Amino acid sequence: MTQSSKPANSPANAPANAMWGGRFEGGNDAIMQAINASIGFDRRLAAQDIAGSRAHAAMLAAQGIVTSSDAEAIREGLLTVLSEIEGGNFPYRVELEDIHMNVEARLKEIIGEPAGRLHTGRSRNDQVALDFRLWVRDQCDAAITGLEALMKAFLAQAEAGADWVMPGFTHLQTAQPVTWGHHMLAYVEMFARDRSRFIDARARMNECPLGAAALAGTSFPIDRDATAAALGFDRPTANSLDSVSDRDFALEFLSASSICAMHLSRFAEELVIWSSSQFRFVKLSDKWTTGSSIMPQKKNPDAAELLRSKLGRILGATVALFTIMKGLALTYSKDMQEDKEQTFDAADSLMLGLAAMTGMVSDMEALRDNLKTAAASGFSTATDLADWLVRELGMPFRDAHHVTGSLVAMAEKAGIDLPDLTLEQMQSVHEGIRKDVFDVLGVDNSVRSRMSYGGTAPEQVRAQVARWQEQLA
Amino acid sequence: MTQSSKPANSPANAPANAMWGGRFEGGNDAIMQAINASIGFDRRLAAQDIAGSRAHAAMLAAQGIVTSSDAEAIREGLLTVLSEIEGGNFPYRVELEDIHMNVEARLKEIIGEPAGRLHTGRSRNDQVALDFRLWVRDQCDAAITGLEALMKAFLAQAEAGADWVMPGFTHLQTAQPVTWGHHMLAYVEMFARDRSRFIDARARMNECPLGAAALAGTSFPIDRDATAAALGFDRPTANSLDSVSDRDFALEFLSASSICAMHLSRFAEELVIWSSSQFRFVKLSDKWTTGSSIMPQKKNPDAAELLRSKLGRILGATVALFTIMKGLALTYSKDMQEDKEQTFDAADSLMLGLAAMTGMVSDMEALRDNLKTAAASGFSTATDLADWLVRELGMPFRDAHHVTGSLVAMAEKAGIDLPDLTLEQMQSVHEGIRKDVFDVLGVDNSVRSRMSYGGTAPEQVRAQVARWQEQLA
Amino acid sequence: MTQSSKPANSPANAPANAMWGGRFEGGNDAIMQAINASIGFDRRLAAQDIAGSRAHAAMLAAQGIVTSSDAEAIREGLLTVLSEIEGGNFPYRVELEDIHMNVEARLKEIIGEPAGRLHTGRSRNDQVALDFRLWVRDQCDAAITGLEALMKAFLAQAEAGADWVMPGFTHLQTAQPVTWGHHMLAYVEMFARDRSRFIDARARMNECPLGAAALAGTSFPIDRDATAAALGFDRPTANSLDSVSDRDFALEFLSASSICAMHLSRFAEELVIWSSSQFRFVKLSDKWTTGSSIMPQKKNPDAAELLRSKLGRILGATVALFTIMKGLALTYSKDMQEDKEQTFDAADSLMLGLAAMTGMVSDMEALRDNLKTAAASGFSTATDLADWLVRELGMPFRDAHHVTGSLVAMAEKAGIDLPDLTLEQMQSVHEGIRKDVFDVLGVDNSVRSRMSYGGTAPEQVRAQVARWQEQLA
Amino acid sequence: MTQSSKPANSPANAPANAMWGGRFEGGNDAIMQAINASIGFDRRLAAQDIAGSRAHAAMLAAQGIVTSSDAEAIREGLLTVLSEIEGGNFPYRVELEDIHMNVEARLKEIIGEPAGRLHTGRSRNDQVALDFRLWVRDQCDAAITGLEALMKAFLAQAEAGADWVMPGFTHLQTAQPVTWGHHMLAYVEMFARDRSRFIDARARMNECPLGAAALAGTSFPIDRDATAAALGFDRPTANSLDSVSDRDFALEFLSASSICAMHLSRFAEELVIWSSSQFRFVKLSDKWTTGSSIMPQKKNPDAAELLRSKLGRILGATVALFTIMKGLALTYSKDMQEDKEQTFDAADSLMLGLAAMTGMVSDMEALRDNLKTAAASGFSTATDLADWLVRELGMPFRDAHHVTGSLVAMAEKAGIDLPDLTLEQMQSVHEGIRKDVFDVLGVDNSVRSRMSYGGTAPEQVRAQVARWQEQLA
Repeated sequence: MTQSSKPANSPANAPANAMWGGRFEGGNDAIMQAINASIGFDRRLAAQDIAGSRAHAAMLAAQGIVTSSDAEAIREGLLTVLSEIEGGNFPYRVELEDIHMNVEARLKEIIGEPAGRLHTGRSRNDQVALDFRLWVRDQCDAAITGLEALMKAFLAQAEAGADWVMPGFTHLQTAQPVTWGHHMLAYVEMFARDRSRFIDARARMNECPLGAAALAGTSFPIDRDATAAALGFDRPTANSLDSVSDRDFALEFLSASSICAMHLSRFAEELVIWSSSQFRFVKLSDKWTTGSSIMPQKKNPDAAELLRSKLGRILGATVALFTIMKGLALTYSKDMQEDKEQTFDAADSLMLGLAAMTGMVSDMEALRDNLKTAAASGFSTATDLADWLVRELGMPFRDAHHVTGSLVAMAEKAGIDLPDLTLEQMQSVHEGIRKDVFDVLGVDNSVRSRMSYGGTAPEQVRAQVARWQEQLA
Repeated sequence: MTQSSKPANSPANAPANAMWGGRFEGGNDAIMQAINASIGFDRRLAAQDIAGSRAHAAMLAAQGIVTSSDAEAIREGLLTVLSEIEGGNFPYRVELEDIHMNVEARLKEIIGEPAGRLHTGRSRNDQVALDFRLWVRDQCDAAITGLEALMKAFLAQAEAGADWVMPGFTHLQTAQPVTWGHHMLAYVEMFARDRSRFIDARARMNECPLGAAALAGTSFPIDRDATAAALGFDRPTANSLDSVSDRDFALEFLSASSICAMHLSRFAEELVIWSSSQFRFVKLSDKWTTGSSIMPQKKNPDAAELLRSKLGRILGATVALFTIMKGLALTYSKDMQEDKEQTFDAADSLMLGLAAMTGMVSDMEALRDNLKTAAASGFSTATDLADWLVRELGMPFRDAHHVTGSLVAMAEKAGIDLPDLTLEQMQSVHEGIRKDVFDVLGVDNSVRSRMSYGGTAPEQVRAQVARWQEQLA
Repeated sequence: MTQSSKPANSPANAPANAMWGGRFEGGNDAIMQAINASIGFDRRLAAQDIAGSRAHAAMLAAQGIVTSSDAEAIREGLLTVLSEIEGGNFPYRVELEDIHMNVEARLKEIIGEPAGRLHTGRSRNDQVALDFRLWVRDQCDAAITGLEALMKAFLAQAEAGADWVMPGFTHLQTAQPVTWGHHMLAYVEMFARDRSRFIDARARMNECPLGAAALAGTSFPIDRDATAAALGFDRPTANSLDSVSDRDFALEFLSASSICAMHLSRFAEELVIWSSSQFRFVKLSDKWTTGSSIMPQKKNPDAAELLRSKLGRILGATVALFTIMKGLALTYSKDMQEDKEQTFDAADSLMLGLAAMTGMVSDMEALRDNLKTAAASGFSTATDLADWLVRELGMPFRDAHHVTGSLVAMAEKAGIDLPDLTLEQMQSVHEGIRKDVFDVLGVDNSVRSRMSYGGTAPEQVRAQVARWQEQLA
Repeated sequence: MTQSSKPANSPANAPANAMWGGRFEGGNDAIMQAINASIGFDRRLAAQDIAGSRAHAAMLAAQGIVTSSDAEAIREGLLTVLSEIEGGNFPYRVELEDIHMNVEARLKEIIGEPAGRLHTGRSRNDQVALDFRLWVRDQCDAAITGLEALMKAFLAQAEAGADWVMPGFTHLQTAQPVTWGHHMLAYVEMFARDRSRFIDARARMNECPLGAAALAGTSFPIDRDATAAALGFDRPTANSLDSVSDRDFALEFLSASSICAMHLSRFAEELVIWSSSQFRFVKLSDKWTTGSSIMPQKKNPDAAELLRSKLGRILGATVALFTIMKGLALTYSKDMQEDKEQTFDAADSLMLGLAAMTGMVSDMEALRDNLKTAAASGFSTATDLADWLVRELGMPFRDAHHVTGSLVAMAEKAGIDLPDLTLEQMQSVHEGIRKDVFDVLGVDNSVRSRMSYGGTAPEQVRAQVARWQEQLA
């Protein structure tokens, strides 16, 4: 989001005018360069740029558009450039504006004249469209991998705690007992949908824009199928105007990232609440918390809080790119240069968030006694009682509600919970109640009874764990 | 976005205090009802609610949980309720809060006691999750249908104008000649991706939450596969906690809608610009414009302007739902009730926008002479000249640029365009230039030469039109 | 957000195609009308429209542009129209598109020919700019009034509980004891800033656009100062192009509303957490909660949850209008018609939210025993101990931290809290510790000691309560 | 938005898994540090941090809380640290997490033991609240200064072209003639409102949070008025809980920045359209455009396009912070650490945008002939004719419209414009028309006649220019 290498721009006591003026000492030229040059951020596309150029050069030779020896010189030279970049000794020059010109200029220094033939039949417009698409495609892969790791972390928790009872909440009020494993699996479902979205997005964006040239295609007899295949694409794009105007792939990546970040924010919120002194449902490891020098009991769930916030950052980037793309006439407009920093930042935030959540989930410890005590309070099995009345006595559900309500009121008045009522007390409300009703009032029995598909019964939970383990194997 | 039936709430001259107080005359109860009741908007889910209840009743009977005669009474009674709603004579009661309770209460009036058995083994939580998901699934279908109609409208324009020449723009500056058909096809590609996104979203959401009950599943021996199949779902959802907490399907629908609306905004912008006196590229029909009583030449492109704005509305709804869902602990929280109005409004805006754009595109008339004149100006074939030098004389591309630059400067100085230079003038810059260079300087030849796959050549355009017509047949 | 009077648009079982087609049976004309007409929502501007027209007519007469008798007829006729609207028997006609034309057409029916003179020297462009600005100005007033009521509700809580001790949280972890009154006053500060923002926004928007005419001003000798004064504006706007293009006032209102809604979301979150079984810090009244027919102890904090969500809705509207306004060339474009529904919905949400929060805060009951117990746990006065060491023994703060840490560790190991250590135990860590250290370890003493301006000491709280009561008197 | 110093993270051909793992080689600790440490960006607060600490130290001495010699050592030592930072040779250490700890640790190295006394009576919570507020306050000042420079640039254009005629547009359709100066002044109004918003925001945020300590205030006898005054604040904040929880000042700055960026986007859009070959209303200087090596006539308005996009970036940051702050329980939560990068990036974008727009506006050249030709076409004075009929012949405006419509139709049929009709032709439509009607049909006369306050008449334009020049003097 910010350039960490940038000097602090505003000493607190400096007069505003000096600050303003000082920011752009070089006058207009410096301002134009500051607003226009992209080399400060698009250098992250270096590997993609070089991969694309190498594929292009090979195709040009295969089609007889450049000679094989020129193409070979170009391809070798580009590898040299790549190793300079990876080695950290590439001389970036801001006056060359972007990564594409930086690479090409360096190539010329290395191999001379043949470098000038590389740009035949292409343009910076399709080149940048290619590079950025390759980068976003890589991020889809990274997100998929990261999500699988996170799903496995939740699955491990689910397997261990398939029958640990905890309160199930609606409105953050205790509703019915559920199992720890079941709660963990809820997040497996969410992150599985996220993974599926990134897979779909990747498939949809996997068309190669190279060959669209400036906007209209080219009169050189290029082979777009060849470059597409060489770069791992399913096919070339089918319209050159669209190819240089399209940023759907970034928007879809950002939208999918926002949904994923929303899921992260929900579990992060639960971790913050569960870590409070009042809940004590979970113990986070020291790795993901910070302490206080004078309050040793204090474990601030910093990582969880930061993960809760990442939706803001990623949603912000999403809104930014939508707003940027709004109402742009075809084809390429410079506005679109603003796509990269937003997407870079959102992708970094997402990948970091997935890794941090994976670590936290792996390390966290459910405080089973506290969970069970909380689950058993608050008449949490009242629904079980009502269901028993329907099932065993044939009452309409609405009538069963009424009887249950009376029993809960009786228990509440006596300051006890439902299982503490005597059979006689129960029968005073409805004489048909039998002693086997008590089987449904304990929290363990309650969760065991929820055997509907996808329900909270340990048996169901274990079946789902097995299903997911197989899928992720 | 607003309640049209709501009385104006603030007469301009009333004192603020009276206005404020007057808005909620009934005091707290009225405020709570105003903020809490959803019947004002969720009545749009009536058909989905009844379809879900009918499937549930049939399953309860098949599983022996209710009798066949009770189930039959319920199913028939619900049809009666549906016809009352469709006939506009259903007595909505705001004190019953939502559509679910309104339907059930009316059912009880019609069929009596068996109505009380309908709610066995389910809860309002899975019921509303089901209803809303069915509604959004319908909207995906509507979007797909609407997009196909729009694609066909663009295809018809593309077929008619496969070889009409117009300027291709980058930065809204003339760059190279392209064809009208090619430009139209760019939008076919965009809307095809949108369609593909709605298809993916529909497939992903096509799991049935019914049977999740309140949150934990149920102890009744329900058959979730049966209700899922009856309602056209691929399968039941696999985790009951997730089933009542999940709004991914709405967020994915909204995200896909935002991307689609962004595409609409781009063509809308082009229509506004193309309709200006300065461009005159296109003539919109009277159906989609408004006039002025005193300036009969004035055709305000109102529909295009409104379509340009719809991204704002739909993106706003998307941001709203993301923000609402941020950090919600599992499972259902009342915050989630705010999902519907946002999604309803966005879906209405999208469907209306697709229909309006389809109408506008079908009716618009390209002003071919103006397009061609614009295409031929501004040295638009300079790239063709440079490519000729590379191809025919074997120059490196960067050198060819230099020669072309000199020729353009010569022409500009003489106040003429490139094809108006004589061969001698050209040879004075580079003696290798031959008279067949003129073949590439005309705009018709220029576009014909862009034969790369997806390029602007009429032949390529016709091939793409044929491909899409086949796909949409 | 949605049209409650709109028929359900998509029966669940209808084929998608029929649904789509059926939505716009009348074909293009119906679609254009659906997308173009604003009378469905801009009728809320009726009172403003009539107030503006009456002021305009009076000015036209005063300037001799129309006769006094014509102006009088117009002004009387408009009152008749207003009473029809207020009485609910105004015949809205959708073919007249908007409220302005509906009012003018009806005026003509009532008074005949002079109605045609009303529109002299103005245009629909400045008319709608005026109406909408008047409406938003009213909403600023309503927000200010609503905020003052809410501040008073928090002040009443603060006054009652100026010395009730509760835990102060950072990271939702107990940090230091604070007072209930102090916590309530934090919200008074927030809502006071909101109020101040609405006051500033109102002042900035309080310039009258009437007289800008279509966009260029007019050649009629109108008196813009007169109409501005008649409508309660500080002055006329100074540039006619800007006057019909400007929607800053709505954006500033929406931005201020978003900040206010963010504050509501924070207290709403606290209420949800505080109402949980695990916290039990507060008891909400039945008016703002909903129960469950079978779990009588369950009080779902529905109103709080809905208030937590309102930020989403209002922020969504804000994003929508920013996106709509992005990149619009001057002056009026039809896109701007989308401003109203967003603003109407956000304003309704805000006013309802303020009223509901005021009710909830007034009715809620702090559970003092639970608050105090929670405040005293978790070594919450460790900072007090460290401060005592600095103050009384002259230690550097960082050294005092170290001593305190050792004492907390000692207490934790013994399973007791800080005040339960003996003096001997303390002196074993640092021999300078004296028995008056115990004065700072109790929570009541702790809060009493925080006497810095704005601190949590009851004395400070009472001073702030008094200051605010005076300001709001 | 991104860290330019960050190594490219994903070579295109690397397997996804290696990429993922490689990103966080150090395992959990590295991930936690990556997500948790803020020194990478909060170093921009160094000057503010040191200014705050120096004021705090002086106050501690004045109150007798530390000795004068300790305070002096601290204050001198901090100046040394500042000069190290400004000189670029400060040893930032990421393991110290943030700028506050980095500065304090370095201070200790320089001055030894007294450094430990600096943190008396304060906490990192109020310290960061102070630093960030000071930074944002500086940015308000920078925005105000930048806006004044931009207003002056528009004023210079307005003064020069007070009577240059150009078409005034609604819906991007020619509506009425206006003047260049008038159009420029519309932006002066917009940016003046922006300036006024930053002034209000600055005043509202100008309260000093220092002394709120961790959250509850402090028991040390600090003098908050003294530190507030030393740092240029109007007063200390009045509630310590609010002081460490409040980010309103950043949200208000971001909201005001978004409105300002929306204004920039509107003029940027006009520049893009006006620079097209079809409009040719304006010539941008080479400083703000980029060329093409082969199309020398091409001047891509890159700077304008980038300015059009900045709203996206700034609105994105605004949405991000709103989303982050949603529903945070009091007081400080780590989520709030995400406030800075968003605000830094938005502020940088805004200041750069203002500077670039100021440069572009100063350098641009109106193409007066093209403007005038465009203004005179399209029956642009039809409204003037109608107004003449009302004013001179006493017709009701609606009747005058009808006559004008007939005349325009007549002219259109003849292929001429309104002033080209003969008096006889005019009288054939309405016999009362006299030859002085021609006075109102020329564009110069038209604009001269719009003498209403704020209208487009050159006289009005010059009056407004004078008013603004005086205000900005």
